[in-house]
Amino acid sequence: MNRTAAALVIGNELLSGKVHDSNTLTLSRALRPLGIELRRVVVIPDEVELIASEVNSLRHAHDFVFTSGGVGPTHDDVTVEGIALGLGRRVVRSPVVEALLRDHYGARLTEGHLRMADLVEGTELYPGGSPAWPTMVLGNVFVLPGVPQIFAHKLEGLLPRLRGDEAPFVLRSVDCNIDEGPLKPYLDGVVARFPDVSVGSYPHWGNEDHRVRVTFDGRDPSRVLDAQASFLGDLPPDWVVRSD
Amino acid sequence: MNRTAAALVIGNELLSGKVHDSNTLTLSRALRPLGIELRRVVVIPDEVELIASEVNSLRHAHDFVFTSGGVGPTHDDVTVEGIALGLGRRVVRSPVVEALLRDHYGARLTEGHLRMADLVEGTELYPGGSPAWPTMVLGNVFVLPGVPQIFAHKLEGLLPRLRGDEAPFVLRSVDCNIDEGPLKPYLDGVVARFPDVSVGSYPHWGNEDHRVRVTFDGRDPSRVLDAQASFLGDLPPDWVVRSD
Repeated sequence: MNRTAAALVIGNELLSGKVHDSNTLTLSRALRPLGIELRRVVVIPDEVELIASEVNSLRHAHDFVFTSGGVGPTHDDVTVEGIALGLGRRVVRSPVVEALLRDHYGARLTEGHLRMADLVEGTELYPGGSPAWPTMVLGNVFVLPGVPQIFAHKLEGLLPRLRGDEAPFVLRSVDCNIDEGPLKPYLDGVVARFPDVSVGSYPHWGNEDHRVRVTFDGRDPSRVLDAQASFLGDLPPDWVVRSD
Repeated sequence: MNRTAAALVIGNELLSGKVHDSNTLTLSRALRPLGIELRRVVVIPDEVELIASEVNSLRHAHDFVFTSGGVGPTHDDVTVEGIALGLGRRVVRSPVVEALLRDHYGARLTEGHLRMADLVEGTELYPGGSPAWPTMVLGNVFVLPGVPQIFAHKLEGLLPRLRGDEAPFVLRSVDCNIDEGPLKPYLDGVVARFPDVSVGSYPHWGNEDHRVRVTFDGRDPSRVLDAQASFLGDLPPDWVVRSD
């Protein structure tokens, strides 16, 4: 079983150039060792209808959907409302989260904070990551905050839940001091011999060390290593800067 | 007229965590002074059918589509083929681009390089950016390379083509040393008074300097400044670290 995932990244700030999304990279790197393939990332603004329609199309097409952002207490945090609309459910106050909030904020608690206790009806609270703070799960949709440190922390807490029986993805690389034109026949050769290994070729512009990184990705470590060795065996040795 | 844009970011390497996309940030920052709103970013793997269907759905829903990646000479560069499929057109060898490639590579030219002269039939070659290298344009679809330095350079060359009569977006901010809970009523106030200004609130976790950045975005500079001033006027002064 090869499970797939999609990320729905929510926030005006990412589309207006105020903030650089790093959660997608965190997610993709966390999923590789689990053998889960991230197939699609969609970035949209904080708009209820858009969130509703995206969550619906992504959750039907992938095994897992991870949303990032829009779960704080302010007016621009509309992810819960969007998911509720998409799933055709109500938003209800969670006594469990309300108690956590009251415990955490104590005398500093405001009505604003309590807004974070308003969840999609039927939300599962998964007790991973930050001890006091469960993650919202709705079927195959995992609702994560946009703040990068908390996103990473909560994702780590979800890993036991996500673990299946897939082999992890294995990655090897060869750095070359030649451009893609002359490399192309060697790439075509290894691609033809190893159809089960994903071969990538990435020009590193302005890099003094090497001009192209060639990568070999797959689920079968021996096939990935064989593909790398086969490519190296073909290539003129003085084109190779290193292999990793 | 408020024009919108979408980005289609193409590349397995972005979904497998090998490379961090920075072209989206470059694009969003380039579009703000033009008053063009980036509404959607989609990241997909190097797959012809996916590229075809995404290009089609994005180009009908936005004024501009910018694709990034997949235009080099190697086997994993399938953006041109994908766009051709989406538009129902053939891929044909461009004599103009072939001449540019022959001129650029001279004796080093390979069959691999020449693959970059195979374009979607009817492609317009826009002569901006890098002097020797035109940008492929298909109606409202602008086809840009994934290498960040070349992406930025070519995008800069496209700016005259993209310029319209919209006012640029204006951005102001207020950094606060208090969390979003107590800020919420003040945010709700300014949001209600300035429905034409987009107000954002971004917790900066682990930041020693400030805890939340509040931003004010809009096309009318006086309204943006008034919203910022109105928010500052309401707020307890000792919550404010700075306003920009």
